[in-house]
Amino acid sequence: MGIITLLTDFGLEDPYVGIMKGVIMGLNRAVSIVDLTHRIAPGDISGAAFALKESFSFFPPATIHVAVVDPGVGTDRRPLLVKSRNHFFVGPDNGLFWPIIQSDPQVLMVHLTNQNYFLPHISRTFHGRDIFAPVAGHLSLGIDPLTMGERFMNPVSLPDATPTLEGDTLLGRAVRIDHFGNVISNIHREELARFLGNRQVLIRVGKETINGVVNTYADGPKGKLLALFGSTDHLEIAVNSGRADRLLNIDEGKALPAVVCHAS
Amino acid sequence: MGIITLLTDFGLEDPYVGIMKGVIMGLNRAVSIVDLTHRIAPGDISGAAFALKESFSFFPPATIHVAVVDPGVGTDRRPLLVKSRNHFFVGPDNGLFWPIIQSDPQVLMVHLTNQNYFLPHISRTFHGRDIFAPVAGHLSLGIDPLTMGERFMNPVSLPDATPTLEGDTLLGRAVRIDHFGNVISNIHREELARFLGNRQVLIRVGKETINGVVNTYADGPKGKLLALFGSTDHLEIAVNSGRADRLLNIDEGKALPAVVCHAS
Amino acid sequence: MGIITLLTDFGLEDPYVGIMKGVIMGLNRAVSIVDLTHRIAPGDISGAAFALKESFSFFPPATIHVAVVDPGVGTDRRPLLVKSRNHFFVGPDNGLFWPIIQSDPQVLMVHLTNQNYFLPHISRTFHGRDIFAPVAGHLSLGIDPLTMGERFMNPVSLPDATPTLEGDTLLGRAVRIDHFGNVISNIHREELARFLGNRQVLIRVGKETINGVVNTYADGPKGKLLALFGSTDHLEIAVNSGRADRLLNIDEGKALPAVVCHAS
Repeated sequence: MGIITLLTDFGLEDPYVGIMKGVIMGLNRAVSIVDLTHRIAPGDISGAAFALKESFSFFPPATIHVAVVDPGVGTDRRPLLVKSRNHFFVGPDNGLFWPIIQSDPQVLMVHLTNQNYFLPHISRTFHGRDIFAPVAGHLSLGIDPLTMGERFMNPVSLPDATPTLEGDTLLGRAVRIDHFGNVISNIHREELARFLGNRQVLIRVGKETINGVVNTYADGPKGKLLALFGSTDHLEIAVNSGRADRLLNIDEGKALPAVVCHAS
Repeated sequence: MGIITLLTDFGLEDPYVGIMKGVIMGLNRAVSIVDLTHRIAPGDISGAAFALKESFSFFPPATIHVAVVDPGVGTDRRPLLVKSRNHFFVGPDNGLFWPIIQSDPQVLMVHLTNQNYFLPHISRTFHGRDIFAPVAGHLSLGIDPLTMGERFMNPVSLPDATPTLEGDTLLGRAVRIDHFGNVISNIHREELARFLGNRQVLIRVGKETINGVVNTYADGPKGKLLALFGSTDHLEIAVNSGRADRLLNIDEGKALPAVVCHAS
Repeated sequence: MGIITLLTDFGLEDPYVGIMKGVIMGLNRAVSIVDLTHRIAPGDISGAAFALKESFSFFPPATIHVAVVDPGVGTDRRPLLVKSRNHFFVGPDNGLFWPIIQSDPQVLMVHLTNQNYFLPHISRTFHGRDIFAPVAGHLSLGIDPLTMGERFMNPVSLPDATPTLEGDTLLGRAVRIDHFGNVISNIHREELARFLGNRQVLIRVGKETINGVVNTYADGPKGKLLALFGSTDHLEIAVNSGRADRLLNIDEGKALPAVVCHAS
């Protein structure tokens, strides 16, 4: 009766995700499998790490989260199991789980070495199928993580992603464009409140300036830029009935812009 | 053992849909969740309403359908629960459920006001997660809709979407392009039969004219326009082994053309 | 408690796949439904046949695989049930199951004619909903395939898809581009080994030449073409941290190139 979530950069054209589900269900017919997303940009480890951190806590305790964004598949990068806040995480040790690991002093990390919990034949190109899916299937049956490998303490990290304070400016950046063209920053509601105190905020992004923060996507005139706190309480640039990414000329594949907050 | 379907304009790039599933499964681990589609065009309420009406009756009685196309999220638009034909519908009161409401004199509508059935913290930007998913989870556990809010009678409606008779012409319009490029109209098989009586039909769409209605997509020469009744018995313009939208120069984002029937 | 997989060219914009799931769950509430992919190119029967053959064996015995790539829907092409290697396959008789049929001398094939296992009303345009989904639902309840129609022996075949030997050259071809831009050929690891013996391989594709086969996508310099055996042990052209389809100028919709192996 467990739950396994899947997050990958595999896309939906190929049967790769379905194959992983077949492997899991061959081990545990009663598990529920939920797709988080399979449209992480190919190889975008930090984007995947952000999406996973944003999502996992909405699932019940003991959920197993399999994440496979794995440009180093088949090299000597380690397969990893993480237990944190009573959730399990399975995938490559390449930074995917760093935001979760970093924020939990009691995290348990296991280097997956026990091949009894892998498929019999392990390819060099598809560890989602051969290692991570079967490990998740066994975990969902109640196997103890510590029988699956050895504890270790030096996981691969990601660069620090928090905003910096420069003089009287809070210097953040856009970290993600969502499906609606909303530009999501790394500036958290509480961080901005601490920075501002009693003052009003002026936000600069690209060549545009936004005055203050509103409450909903429908606030303000149609077609105009606005700023609000999104569903994870991060500052977000949006357009009422439009796309902020287009208005800001953020093209796919281009670097995401800085999001700079001044107090006024 | 209940079933919950999800229909949104959230797309599949972000983990939003997965997060809604996590919330539901945290309340009812045994429910089955089915995606209807998450690729409704952003904000396309009438497209979503059409897709939902086309789909719901193929599910077993007591299925709960959650629909979130919600440009007014966080404003004073009401969260809504509808019971019709022994199915349940949960989402914003913005017209999404109008075709279902309009066609059922015994419909029950409830304005969702009881916060006991919401998440503890309600954002202004993601009621799919904070209101509609938890309401659906509680409903699937057998909670009585009338404990979740107050009955009301004045839901938001959509403009009339049925064809009109002008002289000896039945004036319909294209309402949707499907994945195959088929152009689906609002003209129902029975309506056309009533209009035609014993006569033959001549169909005009854009600059093209089609003579008569065939039975299958493979009828007629390859690459030529044809008309047939699709899987919901609406008149549909298609091309044998091709795309009708391209042949008719219907670009994405442009207004959909009129579909005009003459009797001959 | 059975498993039903779905593979179609229906895409994810329309509610067609969700509707099929509703029909199945109306017959068997306890079945698990898994999407293989719904993004087969419209009408691409051989691409679907390849994806299905690559996937089915990773599912547990008795899994039912429904495949609907069906340009001839509504014509006299037969609806088909195949039992092979203790898996079931349901869909149109148009070559979709040919690779599975061809490789199993003990295959059972049934022409689905018993309308008791279809929906009451059968459209001419959506047999996935009206025939294949309900047949799969009934099968998952344990109905005997032989009560569903008549055995037959002359299924529709596909052209031979194996590489050919011309002098001292193994002449294969690209059969699929995956989500990462990897170009997957029809040359199996064992076939190449038999051809080469003790010799080294030189691979030509388009105007490019690749020397030898590496083990992982991360082998070799970034941005350079490489060849390796992919997750189904077929020879695959890839680029470390890039897309082989772009480097080889393979545009969407264009014919896929030959993949030619020389011994050196």
